[in-house]
Amino acid sequence: MSAFDNQSLQAIRSAFLDFIDDPFYTAESNSVRYIPDGLLIIKNGAIADFGAYNDLRSQYSHIPVTAYPDRLIMPGFIDTHVHYAQYEMIAAYGEQLLEWLSKYIFPIERKFKDKAHAKKIATLFFDELLKQGTTTALVFATVHPESVDAFFEEASRRNLRMISGKVLMDRNAPDYLTDTPQTAYEDSKKLIQKWHKNGRLLYAVTPRFAPTSTPEQLHIAAKLLQEFPDVYLHTHLSENKKEMEWVAELFPESRGYLDVYDRAGLVGEKSIFAHGIHLTHAEFERLSNAKSAIAFCPTSNLFLGSGLFKLAQAKSSQHPVKVGLGTDVGAGTSFSILQTMNEAYKVAQLQGESLSAFKALFLATLGGAKALSLDDKIGNFNPGKEADFVVLDPKATTLMATRNEGFPAQSLEELAQMVFGLMMLGDDRAVQAVYVAGKLAHCLAAIP
Amino acid sequence: MSAFDNQSLQAIRSAFLDFIDDPFYTAESNSVRYIPDGLLIIKNGAIADFGAYNDLRSQYSHIPVTAYPDRLIMPGFIDTHVHYAQYEMIAAYGEQLLEWLSKYIFPIERKFKDKAHAKKIATLFFDELLKQGTTTALVFATVHPESVDAFFEEASRRNLRMISGKVLMDRNAPDYLTDTPQTAYEDSKKLIQKWHKNGRLLYAVTPRFAPTSTPEQLHIAAKLLQEFPDVYLHTHLSENKKEMEWVAELFPESRGYLDVYDRAGLVGEKSIFAHGIHLTHAEFERLSNAKSAIAFCPTSNLFLGSGLFKLAQAKSSQHPVKVGLGTDVGAGTSFSILQTMNEAYKVAQLQGESLSAFKALFLATLGGAKALSLDDKIGNFNPGKEADFVVLDPKATTLMATRNEGFPAQSLEELAQMVFGLMMLGDDRAVQAVYVAGKLAHCLAAIP
Repeated sequence: MSAFDNQSLQAIRSAFLDFIDDPFYTAESNSVRYIPDGLLIIKNGAIADFGAYNDLRSQYSHIPVTAYPDRLIMPGFIDTHVHYAQYEMIAAYGEQLLEWLSKYIFPIERKFKDKAHAKKIATLFFDELLKQGTTTALVFATVHPESVDAFFEEASRRNLRMISGKVLMDRNAPDYLTDTPQTAYEDSKKLIQKWHKNGRLLYAVTPRFAPTSTPEQLHIAAKLLQEFPDVYLHTHLSENKKEMEWVAELFPESRGYLDVYDRAGLVGEKSIFAHGIHLTHAEFERLSNAKSAIAFCPTSNLFLGSGLFKLAQAKSSQHPVKVGLGTDVGAGTSFSILQTMNEAYKVAQLQGESLSAFKALFLATLGGAKALSLDDKIGNFNPGKEADFVVLDPKATTLMATRNEGFPAQSLEELAQMVFGLMMLGDDRAVQAVYVAGKLAHCLAAIP
Repeated sequence: MSAFDNQSLQAIRSAFLDFIDDPFYTAESNSVRYIPDGLLIIKNGAIADFGAYNDLRSQYSHIPVTAYPDRLIMPGFIDTHVHYAQYEMIAAYGEQLLEWLSKYIFPIERKFKDKAHAKKIATLFFDELLKQGTTTALVFATVHPESVDAFFEEASRRNLRMISGKVLMDRNAPDYLTDTPQTAYEDSKKLIQKWHKNGRLLYAVTPRFAPTSTPEQLHIAAKLLQEFPDVYLHTHLSENKKEMEWVAELFPESRGYLDVYDRAGLVGEKSIFAHGIHLTHAEFERLSNAKSAIAFCPTSNLFLGSGLFKLAQAKSSQHPVKVGLGTDVGAGTSFSILQTMNEAYKVAQLQGESLSAFKALFLATLGGAKALSLDDKIGNFNPGKEADFVVLDPKATTLMATRNEGFPAQSLEELAQMVFGLMMLGDDRAVQAVYVAGKLAHCLAAIP
């Protein structure tokens, strides 16, 4: 190995947890990979090797090791649905979806015509994501191309794997926030050509939701997907009952909400639908067959009183649907994926089901990667993947330290209880450090 | 004014928010008291004077002022239902009430026979409460008198206004955790004589819940209430559907769960019932007539999947029931009353109702005081009351600072949105300082 190679290699030693299969379908003992004392070797921002420290130490004895004792390293968290432009409107009081949109959200999205403003909020947004351990997200911008440029410029500067796109909306919204089918097409096309696969960035064609796009615009969205077959489709689906009634009125010929998108040609393998709370059995089946994904956003669904997502049904063996977790800020009440898992558990409990910590952590990592068709690039520590990871402290507060006294766990059973404690009690204080493509991107300030 | 008087006086200047009436029944403009620049005068641990800084400054110009600019001072938070012995079992995975009790809770409560252990956990518990801004709580100990002594000794050392009592349970629990009607009576009586009204401490007769007490023991509890008419009654009620079925089997002669307590003579003005999720209209009416109180514990109710508390029904004008907020740790997932309000809002939203920040903050302060019949002593800044208060920072994090940019608010409308942001996004990091009977009891370490 040459001197140059040595210098480009990094080694991280700690306890590691990731997933090699889906614990909803495969026993946790076969889907969870836990290495109490592991070594991660990184080369040029990608994972070069990964295994038990004792197995790998001799092979990499020439590389200095960064050690995180008493910590747990996991793949970076993936947020499959969030609106960066709503950063400052988080936790707006008293409304359900449609009134909340018109009262609070549309007015602040207006500001993103101003690229300087968009840049300022994008900076705050990425700072916050990294602080929470989120390294990849599927993100709504606004209707303004400026908002997309600002977002991607900032993401590019940080070398983050991010997906976003210009919002398409040509009706049922204030004039200042609408485009036309034609400008939607032209602007999106330019943005795709500029940003899709530019470094780690990817593009999503992003109609807001059926009520704010004419059938003509939905067909334009499909046309973009045909011209650029590897871009994403990102929109909302069956979040709120009034929304669904409205969709039924606006699209009387459709057999249901999903069918509106389906008739337009928007339901495919790279389509991600946020929420899907009120889906029928047939709709789950259709999503399963189409290999589309759902972003499950518990803090948002509770905050807007939208309802309880049927996770068990989505993850059924018969018609499995890809599911990731989404914070959905500004309707979500936290950027923390840990807190999102906390409320995902509660949504399951209210339906008489229990979401194990491993299942929740799967959704937040490899499951999210699968939902975004990115599991060849991120989501676990398989060599060849990009080295985005988060260093977690299961004893971050006095309460957590008492609750998780025995950490690091020596068995999977012990670990299950401890990471459950982490997901119920943890927040950004449990996120000690975050690495993006092998580089330290966030480090928690020590408390004196 | 003599030199002695001057020295014993303290003055605190900041923005102040408290309640002079119940905003569920009186317009917020008449129930909320907001003083953007106020002065609180404290003498011997009690509030001596309170008003606008400009009105009071000349009168107290000789006293040094502690100023908290850009902060909001509120009465200390009140937690009307929590189990101190469950501190280390917070966030235990995968069960609903009855299985959770037998699998996780009973085994750890066993340890409180050992007073040294009880003392250690009591210390952690009070540290945590103060960190969260909670200055008064109604607290389950365990069946062991040692657990009560340890609790009250530590509360006394800190001069906290606290209510607790020995748990009564003489059946349907492991042998190591049961008493008998006779020992329940004798031990409780001794503890009442020792601790009730000892300084700021108060006693609650505490049968765990109907399933773990024989009818004989419930009558013993009532006997204690007759002998000591100003002690409290603290128990659980209608939390979980299986629990309710079990109660119906165990007490076939009763017309419902509340009726079990009522027949025993346990439903009175100083009775506080935790949960009450599945109460009937008639039961709400009975609680209203009896002037009993309910502790609403949203994080617990969601965590155990117990259900959604009907706050609007409890706070109806026709049959108003006193309601306080409870964390109910260990089934609750946070000691933070702010986070408890966050989930109380979500519980309301899921039922198509909106809980305003002022209403939630009322429940956490004056409402909690009323629920505990302590509104002559704590709950707001009326002169004569005990000076327990919390200094809040509505801009505690970058996200909160952006969300609440305009703080301090100049109008009640502005303030409503800002304190809503505080309750949705805040945690112990927003609790800058806590005063107990006029003395600084907790101060947030500055982050470098």
